[in-house]
Amino acid sequence: MREPDFSKGLLTAVVVDERSKDVLMVAWMNEESYRQTLATKETWFWSRSRQELWHKGATSGNTQRVKKIMLDCDQDTILLYVNPTGPACHTGHTTCFFEQIL
Amino acid sequence: MREPDFSKGLLTAVVVDERSKDVLMVAWMNEESYRQTLATKETWFWSRSRQELWHKGATSGNTQRVKKIMLDCDQDTILLYVNPTGPACHTGHTTCFFEQIL
Repeated sequence: MREPDFSKGLLTAVVVDERSKDVLMVAWMNEESYRQTLATKETWFWSRSRQELWHKGATSGNTQRVKKIMLDCDQDTILLYVNPTGPACHTGHTTCFFEQIL
Repeated sequence: MREPDFSKGLLTAVVVDERSKDVLMVAWMNEESYRQTLATKETWFWSRSRQELWHKGATSGNTQRVKKIMLDCDQDTILLYVNPTGPACHTGHTTCFFEQIL
């Protein structure tokens, strides 16, 4: 089993709804948040703005149950297929990508 | 029309196949590559490893025709729905996310 390469810095994590296949959000993971995600089967990220471990939904209740994880060819980005409890976006939208620019 | 916020650094660009909704790749854009993408309706990125503008498919022929672009809530990530001419991955896979780790 190959593993993400944390020597490159933070991992880019793309979160996809496993049913609709909509991209819900993009966030960052350090090794600890990746391990917590595997251990709990819920998404944990590294908040770059707050510089702290962030269990998605810990305060809002909108956790994301992880169903499948795919690794990219150069091992610095992962794709997480999740079953979300509620909206991914802090604005209340289902997805953070709610604004069309083209 | 809102715009990506390049003052934060490089934009994260998630490329999705508009038909299958599969995530094909994740790459980076500076302002010039974003402008080139809008102007040509094909994907242009900023190669962090080569430190140069990168027109996807310029050498391989595997260009990506851009059909729709969505911006995220904090304006530092975009989602590009494309119609790809060939595989997205340099390994020959349709998508860079071909390895399942969970």
